[in-house]
Amino acid sequence: MIIIGEKLNTSIETVREAVQNKDAATIKNIALSQIKAGADYIDVNCGTFVENEPELLKWMVSIVEESTDKPLCIDSPNPQALEAALNIHKNKKPIINSITAQRDRYERILPLIIEHKTSVIALCMDDQGIPHGIEDRISIAEKLVNSLVKEGVPYDNIFIDPMIQPVATQGDNGLNALKTISSIKDMLPNINIVCGLSNISYGLPQRNLINKTFLILAMYAGLNAAILDPMAQDIIPQIYTTNLLLGKDEYCLEYIEYIRTMEV
Amino acid sequence: MIIIGEKLNTSIETVREAVQNKDAATIKNIALSQIKAGADYIDVNCGTFVENEPELLKWMVSIVEESTDKPLCIDSPNPQALEAALNIHKNKKPIINSITAQRDRYERILPLIIEHKTSVIALCMDDQGIPHGIEDRISIAEKLVNSLVKEGVPYDNIFIDPMIQPVATQGDNGLNALKTISSIKDMLPNINIVCGLSNISYGLPQRNLINKTFLILAMYAGLNAAILDPMAQDIIPQIYTTNLLLGKDEYCLEYIEYIRTMEV
Repeated sequence: MIIIGEKLNTSIETVREAVQNKDAATIKNIALSQIKAGADYIDVNCGTFVENEPELLKWMVSIVEESTDKPLCIDSPNPQALEAALNIHKNKKPIINSITAQRDRYERILPLIIEHKTSVIALCMDDQGIPHGIEDRISIAEKLVNSLVKEGVPYDNIFIDPMIQPVATQGDNGLNALKTISSIKDMLPNINIVCGLSNISYGLPQRNLINKTFLILAMYAGLNAAILDPMAQDIIPQIYTTNLLLGKDEYCLEYIEYIRTMEV
Repeated sequence: MIIIGEKLNTSIETVREAVQNKDAATIKNIALSQIKAGADYIDVNCGTFVENEPELLKWMVSIVEESTDKPLCIDSPNPQALEAALNIHKNKKPIINSITAQRDRYERILPLIIEHKTSVIALCMDDQGIPHGIEDRISIAEKLVNSLVKEGVPYDNIFIDPMIQPVATQGDNGLNALKTISSIKDMLPNINIVCGLSNISYGLPQRNLINKTFLILAMYAGLNAAILDPMAQDIIPQIYTTNLLLGKDEYCLEYIEYIRTMEV
């Protein structure tokens, strides 16, 4: 399971203030806390600053990379901001978050992925928006993967995001998301499948309870990466436990080792 | 989801002592605590008292039924003990726990199910023991259901137990259990599928973490009943959340209502 830490996002008040004040210590602290909790990648997003997003995203990348050599997940729909960040990043292969099947966005972001040899999150949406039906999402996933591979992006570098929608807005959104994940897994064997976990719980109380429960279900369906808060209560223990129960931890060693660190 | 409370079992020290001392208050208290936490059935088991199990099981049933009108899950492989308990029970239709495809056990317990019009848990094991393979278990499940229905037991009264084995003894026991559940569900639509949840975590630390995570996965696979400790931390909230995410709580009303009671 690939864990992408979501906490460095300027939609979060403390991060917005830290970016505004160029408070590097706070940014580094949030990056390191997520890594300590289990993050494999650090997502960086300055999307609330529309005017000077390129400059601020570049600053955030440089600050995070001063504190860790973990790779980043560079999160913006804005090609200028992505380019500014990619030009100065120095850690291992980042993930670009994200491309879509929207013609303009696809054409402007693809050259950056090719030039910088990055991984990429590909969202199941096109110029018609996010399709409601499972079949339409799968069809966009297939189109995106075929097109990216044809352009030279290695299959392993692609993370399909089925676009989880809140269960509060429609009662079958959870089940449909699970069916979409398992259908993508069947159709595109071994493709990486990622989601922004907290979307599922939007508008409901006890969001972490919903998030961590959905993560377990989605891992069974075939999800192998998630953008989440690795400090959220119980989420990392439940990931280890789910791997154990899905036969991915043959002698229970990773589970037992993790439980030992919890109990210290 | 049908929740069968497992705590009235003489393999638990406090219950053994309460039964030995005919301490009705302790027995009633454990029954009521489980109901308050969410149990639909109360399992009663005096199996550690081999000599006088019939007398003690009868006593336990009478005591529990003095305190609640919830139905019981009468838990013994011993036909005499089951008969003694069934002759005095007065609450709604109980579940007999359990019959198997072992010839002798099947032939001695079946008449009790027919006579007392009970539900029954049917374990996927026969005279050769518990089969390791998924196919063999499914074949026993099919044989048991066909045979019970032919003898006059309504399909709805049958709960198939796939016999969960500890993930600590073999790394694929969790995944195989899930595959067995979903295969039984495919083959026998709408059959009740139950398990003794805590078997999965035997021999490992943080058993409740494993139990509750497995329950979520098993509900997705098709489990609709479980013998478990309803007072275990987070287990009932995760059941509500899983129902929500599997599209079984259309307007999120049951979830929101439950969360309100949690927060009081």
